[in-house]
Amino acid sequence: MKARVTVTLKAGVLDPQGQAIEGSLKSLGMSGVGGVRQGKVFDLLLDATDESAARAAVTTMCEKLLANTVIENYTIEISN
Amino acid sequence: MKARVTVTLKAGVLDPQGQAIEGSLKSLGMSGVGGVRQGKVFDLLLDATDESAARAAVTTMCEKLLANTVIENYTIEISN
Repeated sequence: MKARVTVTLKAGVLDPQGQAIEGSLKSLGMSGVGGVRQGKVFDLLLDATDESAARAAVTTMCEKLLANTVIENYTIEISN
Repeated sequence: MKARVTVTLKAGVLDPQGQAIEGSLKSLGMSGVGGVRQGKVFDLLLDATDESAARAAVTTMCEKLLANTVIENYTIEISN
């Protein structure tokens, strides 16, 4: 199975990288952007064959390695 | 409107960061992972009020700044 983990900063956490991107967009002449937040995405190939086992395994991976749960949220999508 | 841009490496492009994460998962005792690829996600707040205008603006941003289209693919999701 495949899993996609999306890790984003929690609301209120400063995102200087996102601010830099917003500034760059403006200096390139692309206006109309009110804010940019950057996050990470992980595409995992899993040996697990059922969805609940896959989701449980990926949740453990997120809690232990992929996300810093103090400042980041994560979402998990499982597909075949 | 809001836009989420997901930027991933094209197939065949080496991803040492993903390989490092895969190695870390294994050394933390989490087996059953056949591969990890890392990408980026950008959450944009847009002033545009209709979806097609928003999508056109974000496509320009991707082509000019957010993605390196030589080695990366991008997908755009627009929501209210």
